[in-house]
Amino acid sequence: MSFSVSILATGSELLDGRVLDTNSNFVAKELAQLGLKLKRILVVDDDMPELLDGLRSLSAVSELVITSGGLGPTSDDLTRDLIARFFKVGLTEFPEARSHLENFYRARGRALDPSNLKQAILPVGSTMIHNERGTAPGFLMTGPGGGTHQVTTCSLSGVPREFTNMFIQSVLPLIKSRAGATTVIKRSSFRTFGLPESIVGRRIEECALPSTISVSYRAAFPEVHVVLKAPEGIDLEGPSQQVRAALNRGAIYAERPDQTLIETVHTALRASSATVATAESCTGGLMAYQLTELPGSSDVFMGSVVAYDNRIKHGVLHVSQDTLSQHGAVSAAAVREMAQSVRSLMGTTYGVAISGIAGPGGGSTEKPVGTVYVGLSGPKRSFEVGFTFVSDRKMVRTYAAHAALDLLRRELNGLEIPDTYPLSGGTLAPKA
Amino acid sequence: MSFSVSILATGSELLDGRVLDTNSNFVAKELAQLGLKLKRILVVDDDMPELLDGLRSLSAVSELVITSGGLGPTSDDLTRDLIARFFKVGLTEFPEARSHLENFYRARGRALDPSNLKQAILPVGSTMIHNERGTAPGFLMTGPGGGTHQVTTCSLSGVPREFTNMFIQSVLPLIKSRAGATTVIKRSSFRTFGLPESIVGRRIEECALPSTISVSYRAAFPEVHVVLKAPEGIDLEGPSQQVRAALNRGAIYAERPDQTLIETVHTALRASSATVATAESCTGGLMAYQLTELPGSSDVFMGSVVAYDNRIKHGVLHVSQDTLSQHGAVSAAAVREMAQSVRSLMGTTYGVAISGIAGPGGGSTEKPVGTVYVGLSGPKRSFEVGFTFVSDRKMVRTYAAHAALDLLRRELNGLEIPDTYPLSGGTLAPKA
Repeated sequence: MSFSVSILATGSELLDGRVLDTNSNFVAKELAQLGLKLKRILVVDDDMPELLDGLRSLSAVSELVITSGGLGPTSDDLTRDLIARFFKVGLTEFPEARSHLENFYRARGRALDPSNLKQAILPVGSTMIHNERGTAPGFLMTGPGGGTHQVTTCSLSGVPREFTNMFIQSVLPLIKSRAGATTVIKRSSFRTFGLPESIVGRRIEECALPSTISVSYRAAFPEVHVVLKAPEGIDLEGPSQQVRAALNRGAIYAERPDQTLIETVHTALRASSATVATAESCTGGLMAYQLTELPGSSDVFMGSVVAYDNRIKHGVLHVSQDTLSQHGAVSAAAVREMAQSVRSLMGTTYGVAISGIAGPGGGSTEKPVGTVYVGLSGPKRSFEVGFTFVSDRKMVRTYAAHAALDLLRRELNGLEIPDTYPLSGGTLAPKA
Repeated sequence: MSFSVSILATGSELLDGRVLDTNSNFVAKELAQLGLKLKRILVVDDDMPELLDGLRSLSAVSELVITSGGLGPTSDDLTRDLIARFFKVGLTEFPEARSHLENFYRARGRALDPSNLKQAILPVGSTMIHNERGTAPGFLMTGPGGGTHQVTTCSLSGVPREFTNMFIQSVLPLIKSRAGATTVIKRSSFRTFGLPESIVGRRIEECALPSTISVSYRAAFPEVHVVLKAPEGIDLEGPSQQVRAALNRGAIYAERPDQTLIETVHTALRASSATVATAESCTGGLMAYQLTELPGSSDVFMGSVVAYDNRIKHGVLHVSQDTLSQHGAVSAAAVREMAQSVRSLMGTTYGVAISGIAGPGGGSTEKPVGTVYVGLSGPKRSFEVGFTFVSDRKMVRTYAAHAALDLLRRELNGLEIPDTYPLSGGTLAPKA
């Protein structure tokens, strides 16, 4: 098996909900960079039988067990005792640990409390791990594990800023050297919007990729992210091309694993020296808020009119009373006028408008909750798209803002605006 | 021992770092409300030997094991098989599960893919748990565990919004009835904004509450929540009064544990038959978005002008060129004009304006990154408050919108607007 790493996280605060365990996720992400996956994560209470039982079960299936927490000076900090008992060794004061503690307090002008000296007492035969951000030193120890193999334990402070620093400084280099035989993994990422996960999955299955390529999907509402992985030496470019072709019509908005839709939209606006303004009803300003997430947004975003009440749609955005009475505020006609009006009011290249029924009230048979119209007014053309996204208020609003951003991206990048825009979970709303 | 609950969370995405496990923390918090603490949390891969080994170890120490994930339609969704193998029963299609799936797809106008029908096949003898937010039904099963006692498993979808809903609807009532012998705990909740956690803590410490009262704090940025707990038979009203007096000057915006600041603001607006409009710069529409979170927002919220660019501040909101050139767009003078202007444009009772430097660029010595001005224009008076909140872009924007909402709450409820508004982490910005 490949080099196997597990985490034993300890502490009442993780089991009574006061603290969310982010250390395990941090380690998981770091290991993924090396092509490794965590074997198990176990959270147990500060209680010696529980700790011993947990450490035994993890060491039976892992070469390395990282412990998080339990290194403080109080009576419920048991990790030093745990490791000594597990490996059947004694405890002793480490001079380098003591001088770290003394220096730490001296540098902060604080007196060293005798109780803190407990933190300088480590298992005999262990190697101290320096903690440059806190008092508690960590330690490494290797010996017979619960299975037939040797196991190494790395005991780190549970405080996230100390844990992450100690992990990067002292544990990661060890994992890299020990997992040296591990295959390097190449990966391709595709971030998509507009296709339901089931269709993304089916189209990629139909590619019949070689079995050496692993495919994983993640529904990151309202997006679907796909990652292809291949061991070194296996062609990944061919399969990636197949996936690009299968998810055609612009569903992929980014191939950088951390690139957001907003970044793609900003880049496209900058590339065309274009600016945008929004006119929003049901989203209440969410699209504007997202367009200003990034520093320097004022290069491409001028502003927005949130016209929540119909009086504002008419009074500020000049949507005609005829349109409001004949078609209603949630209609292609209304978002057409809103988009044109905000574009002209703010003097931008593009105007984008959103009007919909976020619910839970306000729906009707022809226009159920989740009906949303998006209008785009631009230098080349104007168009409107309507869809129904059946969900709760928060998700309808999130989906609507995302769809509007995606339509702007498609228009800027010269991509198709499908007549039946296949919004995930959405169906096309009636025109007009 | 008290009723013992563990969690088995499954999925590659938890072990390779793509997803942070928030479901366990959610359960831990809910149990804490009942005076219970989770026994163990174990995360394992979608792999049958790992799943079986994990479930056995948890069921040996727990009366209830909640599984999270593995209920989807694909080949790596193993939870149904796991439970059937663990209890040594077969699998069968549940008609109620099938009709749930059929209704779910029909309501969304989508075709039911045959692969989805796998989700209707549940262990023989289990009880279906309804999933009103997604396709995969969950299920409950009771039988001999890994130890000497009976164990119940509750298998829920791993998608957080489905997991939390299924837990609250179906698992929590079960836990409450099974854990009946647990001591009843009374609690008082105080949700505060505007005081740093350290000051909240010190003021409550100075109350010298009886040792039978436990106090817990939670920093829910940008708020601080305080909970007092007492066992039944111990007076909680006296200590609660002490805390109310200690956190005076309107810092407590709610005493219902789940009441948001937006709800408090909406209630106060309705009580005064008042409406509000916002004019936003650095927050980009965030305050408007938050004011429209709740259904029926149009009773109290009319709309917003997001004037991100100075041309929009002048052209749409008529902020004078004199103000912009002499004081700048981030100034008390600018937000005063913005608030008045949007109030008059939208015909509302109140206008609230926000302008600031969210960063990371744009700061100066007099107005560093994090400098924010909030202006309020109302029927009784108008005022401006400036502060500097040193943090990153996202947190500055979150804090600014929250501070503006809180100032509106204070004005509506006739509370003091302190001259040195003690914003947590914030200092008062220069006037003008």
